[in-house]
Amino acid sequence: MNAQHPSDPHWLNERELAAWKAFSAVMIKLPAALDAQLQREAGLNQFEYLVLAGLSESPGRRLRMSTLAVLANGSLSRLSHVVKRLEARGYLRREPCSDDGRYTNAVLTDDGWTKIVATAPGHVTAVRSLVVDALEPEQFDQLLEISLRVLHAMDPDVGCPGSG
Amino acid sequence: MNAQHPSDPHWLNERELAAWKAFSAVMIKLPAALDAQLQREAGLNQFEYLVLAGLSESPGRRLRMSTLAVLANGSLSRLSHVVKRLEARGYLRREPCSDDGRYTNAVLTDDGWTKIVATAPGHVTAVRSLVVDALEPEQFDQLLEISLRVLHAMDPDVGCPGSG
Repeated sequence: MNAQHPSDPHWLNERELAAWKAFSAVMIKLPAALDAQLQREAGLNQFEYLVLAGLSESPGRRLRMSTLAVLANGSLSRLSHVVKRLEARGYLRREPCSDDGRYTNAVLTDDGWTKIVATAPGHVTAVRSLVVDALEPEQFDQLLEISLRVLHAMDPDVGCPGSG
Repeated sequence: MNAQHPSDPHWLNERELAAWKAFSAVMIKLPAALDAQLQREAGLNQFEYLVLAGLSESPGRRLRMSTLAVLANGSLSRLSHVVKRLEARGYLRREPCSDDGRYTNAVLTDDGWTKIVATAPGHVTAVRSLVVDALEPEQFDQLLEISLRVLHAMDPDVGCPGSG
């Protein structure tokens, strides 16, 4: 215990603040840079890309909406909105889940498959040049562990890092 | 050189992909969580918070607009938009730079100072609970180095990491 007034917040120390400021800058600038690349080359934002990529990697190129929302890191309401837009563009369609008609699946269309196949190489190249090639191999493990800890702090249902 | 077809992208390996997927999730979810806290408690988004906080830490509580844009990690056009909104709410005002009237300064008002003093403790508490307290001390140094490398990859004008 220290002598801090109980209503004082526990301010960040110099080391914490330096990391937080640099990380904040990454969180603001990197999604903007990746979105710009995707918009320029494919007319998609990053969330839309994650939705199409997630479907393309799934058996039958289909996923239950609630699963797709988790995979694309968004809420179900945000996903519904985006899925409607992607459906209007012909990249996917919605249909009742054959196992349980109360649920809805999103299914990638052939046009959606063509779109993601055309878009992925450019996006991976951007991710590689802005992130992957900038890091040393051991920094991937550090970044994974740090990311899992933050995800766990935001949502304890996300598996505890270091326990797997 | 490997035997990859020249038009094949250099896909991510398993280790790179695991780190990238977890980090992508953080980049999507953490700003949303912090924005939600700021909106709920202060009616500000994170960019607006960074603008007010940046001014509050500057001599005379004032900064040239171009400096403030760098500090808040935004473009000058985005900053101009946000500064107009904050000015309408009475938290800052714009005035010509006294050294060179071609430039504009943003100046924190007394209301803006009161606002940031009231807002900072809750925001720091959120940053601490979602990020700082989730990490081990050595992970701050890892996160700083990783962040600086990514920032440098996006903008080589940002000092080369590890060189300072």
